[in-house]
Amino acid sequence: GRKVLIVYAHQEPKSLNGSLKRVAVEELSKQGCSVTVSDLYAMQFEPRATRNDIVGCLHNSEEFDYGVETWQAYKRGGLSSDLLEEQKKVQEADLLIFQFPLYWFSMPAIMKGWMDRVLAQGFAHEYPNCYDSGLLQNKLALFSFTTGGSKEMYAKEGISGDIRYLLWPLQHGIMHFCGVKVLAPHICFAPEYVSEEKRKEMLIAWAQRLKTLWKEEPINCSPEWYFK
Amino acid sequence: GRKVLIVYAHQEPKSLNGSLKRVAVEELSKQGCSVTVSDLYAMQFEPRATRNDIVGCLHNSEEFDYGVETWQAYKRGGLSSDLLEEQKKVQEADLLIFQFPLYWFSMPAIMKGWMDRVLAQGFAHEYPNCYDSGLLQNKLALFSFTTGGSKEMYAKEGISGDIRYLLWPLQHGIMHFCGVKVLAPHICFAPEYVSEEKRKEMLIAWAQRLKTLWKEEPINCSPEWYFK
Repeated sequence: GRKVLIVYAHQEPKSLNGSLKRVAVEELSKQGCSVTVSDLYAMQFEPRATRNDIVGCLHNSEEFDYGVETWQAYKRGGLSSDLLEEQKKVQEADLLIFQFPLYWFSMPAIMKGWMDRVLAQGFAHEYPNCYDSGLLQNKLALFSFTTGGSKEMYAKEGISGDIRYLLWPLQHGIMHFCGVKVLAPHICFAPEYVSEEKRKEMLIAWAQRLKTLWKEEPINCSPEWYFK
Repeated sequence: GRKVLIVYAHQEPKSLNGSLKRVAVEELSKQGCSVTVSDLYAMQFEPRATRNDIVGCLHNSEEFDYGVETWQAYKRGGLSSDLLEEQKKVQEADLLIFQFPLYWFSMPAIMKGWMDRVLAQGFAHEYPNCYDSGLLQNKLALFSFTTGGSKEMYAKEGISGDIRYLLWPLQHGIMHFCGVKVLAPHICFAPEYVSEEKRKEMLIAWAQRLKTLWKEEPINCSPEWYFK
């Protein structure tokens, strides 16, 4: 059975994001997948990158460099236990699903903190092992999110620009950098402004997509996909 | 005298980011500006968007919607005191400088949390007052940051793509949405891989730019600036 990690960032279980997460757990479990959820708000996940992420002595106690310190700590098994747990989940997963409401053209800070802290040098990348040779090869990622703005606002000529523009930092800058292949994003536009009926259709569409997810080909993660 | 708010996110005062921040405080103060710094790590600024941001009863205690709750709380003066303080600093400022190391093609989570929480609906935007009619008009913003990757990696044909691609969510998605005009970014590429001499030149270049900053015209914040 395949292994899936859902990294989930919403405060309210009754929200559409909460329902999308439950639908994914149910459908993927039904398929025989083993599904793990990191419910970031429920875990009170720490988003701040600080000295607390390193157990024991620092490599350079005179001048703190977070990237260098976590790299060194990773190599000697000295990262904090919350990071080791998340890294273990990532290591075991075939697919990472990120489920969140879009905040300011990006992930909520609590999820950005997961990226900042979990995807440490040594674990997810280590020069020159980045992009196609990143350390998390043979994994897939999928960004599933809700927006405040409408599909029209996020059209190429819309006021917020093509929704793909804002996926560049997430899909290319983070996932591709770590060697992860990216499936097409799953976007529910403006669920707050549609009927309950339409929101139910959104859940059904997600469940439907998940049924054939393993047959999907990753997107071509090049600038053309995003900007042309 | 003009008022400047520097939102600063680095753990180490001795870092180049710390020096860039100090240079800005010194140079702008010398010009007669009143400069305030929000030193996010030192403040242990909370990046997570939670129910704790609302003082007293919720608008809808059955189903928590962060955007709606903070909007309602803003209107009745019921946001948490740390948010009110930051909003006061923003309100008074003519210029916002964001000083940070680039983490994963974006701001560190602690600064993303500042955006998520401080720029609440009602305060920074309120439909239809967004983009050119956003509520923080007549203010300027400037993103000043350091990168891990080199200038060549962040060239249009480089592996990380044009550095402007990743500025879209920050400058357009956040600042322009709130009605803030954006000055050209200030970017120090890969300071970790250059000589001490070169890093000193970076500080001097920043001080130099600040001397004539108030004469600069904002960028044309349209998709063409970012993607063409």
